[in-house]
Amino acid sequence: MSRARYETLAWDVDADGVATLTLNRPDQLNAFDLTMAGELEQLFRTDAHADDVRAVVVTGAGRAFCAGMDLSAEGNVFGLDESLRPTVAEFRESYDAAPYDAGVRDTGGKVTLAIHALPKPVIAAINGPAVGIGATMTLAMDLRLASTRARIGFVFGRLGIVPEAASTWFLPRIVGIQQALEWVYSADILDADAALAGRLVRSLHEPDDLVPAAQELARSFVVGRSATALGLAKRLLYRNSAVADPLEAHLSDSLAMYWSSLGDGKEGVAAFLEKRAPEFSGRASELPDVF
Amino acid sequence: MSRARYETLAWDVDADGVATLTLNRPDQLNAFDLTMAGELEQLFRTDAHADDVRAVVVTGAGRAFCAGMDLSAEGNVFGLDESLRPTVAEFRESYDAAPYDAGVRDTGGKVTLAIHALPKPVIAAINGPAVGIGATMTLAMDLRLASTRARIGFVFGRLGIVPEAASTWFLPRIVGIQQALEWVYSADILDADAALAGRLVRSLHEPDDLVPAAQELARSFVVGRSATALGLAKRLLYRNSAVADPLEAHLSDSLAMYWSSLGDGKEGVAAFLEKRAPEFSGRASELPDVF
Amino acid sequence: MSRARYETLAWDVDADGVATLTLNRPDQLNAFDLTMAGELEQLFRTDAHADDVRAVVVTGAGRAFCAGMDLSAEGNVFGLDESLRPTVAEFRESYDAAPYDAGVRDTGGKVTLAIHALPKPVIAAINGPAVGIGATMTLAMDLRLASTRARIGFVFGRLGIVPEAASTWFLPRIVGIQQALEWVYSADILDADAALAGRLVRSLHEPDDLVPAAQELARSFVVGRSATALGLAKRLLYRNSAVADPLEAHLSDSLAMYWSSLGDGKEGVAAFLEKRAPEFSGRASELPDVF
Repeated sequence: MSRARYETLAWDVDADGVATLTLNRPDQLNAFDLTMAGELEQLFRTDAHADDVRAVVVTGAGRAFCAGMDLSAEGNVFGLDESLRPTVAEFRESYDAAPYDAGVRDTGGKVTLAIHALPKPVIAAINGPAVGIGATMTLAMDLRLASTRARIGFVFGRLGIVPEAASTWFLPRIVGIQQALEWVYSADILDADAALAGRLVRSLHEPDDLVPAAQELARSFVVGRSATALGLAKRLLYRNSAVADPLEAHLSDSLAMYWSSLGDGKEGVAAFLEKRAPEFSGRASELPDVF
Repeated sequence: MSRARYETLAWDVDADGVATLTLNRPDQLNAFDLTMAGELEQLFRTDAHADDVRAVVVTGAGRAFCAGMDLSAEGNVFGLDESLRPTVAEFRESYDAAPYDAGVRDTGGKVTLAIHALPKPVIAAINGPAVGIGATMTLAMDLRLASTRARIGFVFGRLGIVPEAASTWFLPRIVGIQQALEWVYSADILDADAALAGRLVRSLHEPDDLVPAAQELARSFVVGRSATALGLAKRLLYRNSAVADPLEAHLSDSLAMYWSSLGDGKEGVAAFLEKRAPEFSGRASELPDVF
Repeated sequence: MSRARYETLAWDVDADGVATLTLNRPDQLNAFDLTMAGELEQLFRTDAHADDVRAVVVTGAGRAFCAGMDLSAEGNVFGLDESLRPTVAEFRESYDAAPYDAGVRDTGGKVTLAIHALPKPVIAAINGPAVGIGATMTLAMDLRLASTRARIGFVFGRLGIVPEAASTWFLPRIVGIQQALEWVYSADILDADAALAGRLVRSLHEPDDLVPAAQELARSFVVGRSATALGLAKRLLYRNSAVADPLEAHLSDSLAMYWSSLGDGKEGVAAFLEKRAPEFSGRASELPDVF
């Protein structure tokens, strides 16, 4: 565990490349503050990209997953600069010029864009309450497993603020627009069964079984699989689920198929024909740009 | 009830801001004619935007929701100008120049775009047959509740015409592309159970319970919630469900979060910390442009 | 049956216009090789567009649907030109200049784009194993029915290659992004029940009942229905499910409604008012461009 590097996170990578990231402020129910935001973004932009990391499981220490933005923090809890008051055009311009400095950027979104950009499976293991940013950060993860004790709430409307962290991009893609609208309008806390029925979470688990189940699922995704094939597949699925014309998908997957067939694909096909396990050597850190 | 202002509609707003809009041609099973089209568009462009309206429930008078376009009407039932025969480019140009005058515009679409543009929850309470435009108009509403007596049909293929009212934009987002294709190809009348199983409707209700349940759901969405937060959230969900890049969502929700955190968000956070009910003052009629 | 024209396919059109296309290499479990790829693309670009074809059912001869790319084939199994190694920009340029010659184009994608472009219902009757391209080719079909003996696998990650055939465009639209990611990451073979639970297939059937059920469904889509209305509806649903703004849908469906109301729509409305069966004369081969 490299707890030393992070105040608010624990990070452990096992021999199969399954990393477990633990939100680690249990006394504050892992509430999300600006320190945690910065550390999460940093971890998903650096450590998680190491080639010995093949997949990431995210869970919370103690009884909560993440109780949401730490509203008890001193000062500006959202990290936004009240003096800026930009127009849409000014914000877009400031973002393009210096994306990491603009004082209007939602901190949750900085984190979820970093999660989304990782070309590896990311699995949420929602062990307890996941509220506000605690709920929306899981949407940028690829799959969500939940404890029977999970409680999930898109409670923004009760606080007078909007759903953030690019959640309005992810949520309708996961559960459909009707369910997304209802949960955001209601601003209620969902229990685990409602989250499963609405297809937000993939499966429910007894509390003690949750993290092992998520790790086992992650392991099943990566052992004997090509890191480059999985990384490209993740990018293709998100990108092509969102472009207007299937011809765009054909262009990008043709290039990805071309590159992968000359790389890990050669070993994969050879191993298949020789009826042996493949030994892939491609690295997720060296994916081509296919878009 | 302001029945006086509309020939074909009844409109009632209660003390909580829950408006009930009733399609009100019960002797014609609330069939949709050009008068109703014009009145629906007008209502959703004007009355429904009043700040004392917080949510809208739409239902039908008598035993039907809406039996579809009134094909027995005199003259041009679709309201289209047969002399125009424009090319795609000409139609687009005429639309851009004078969007409300182009004689090729589908009347159902004028209504559904007006419904879609309302930054407030809109709930369909489908009390009986909803056929053709009676079915497609509900797709632009955010949630659909149905009576066990509801019957829903995308019957266009039997009439030699296409699904209209921008329904080909909404339907796949609600039920997925496979179910959407099947229902449009079959052109059959679905019973309430099939509509529920296909996730077109959110829940079924006994006939007498339907409108009260829809009104209660609407009330639960708005009492104690910020009108600006809900209005922006609706816009963010529809818009960002449909853009290609999550970065676009991050730009728009950052701006929306910035604005809301300086407005109703200040009161919401203060009320939360002081353990009291919030008193929001933001107005849905004054939402910023965040796109 | 016009078996003579194709080495690897059988093609039969019945009196109602329901065509049955059989992948016909039963001794190789209908494995997909470059001959089959070329023939499928040709069939869907030519024969399937004949106006006496109203819908297409696709199934496999023998016990398999399609066991995937024939990896035992001599030479370059994927049909890609290893000498090209283009950049994204060069590939896009070569595609635009000569789309059918670019040696980087995925062969599965050439087939699925041809299936997708057919303005008629296409139904997969998945009678047994459907693996790799055998699975992804069904995604471009509008509905999937399966035998209880069907086995479906997006196994690309085990071979070191990416999901192809524009499958990353289709799969999330059919089953949602979470399910799509899981199946692609797992690279497992799904049984029929899992495919149904995940909404990949519409319904399960006893092996002997599968093809008749698919043909019956196809027949129910076309008898008494307008070929032009169905063809335009298919194009509108796919296209508008993928554009960002419902206004785009309003523009295209207004034009489609305008044209269809002057064509088969006149007969459809007249037949409805006269309480008789319509006799539509529109031809799917003569659809207007409405985008």
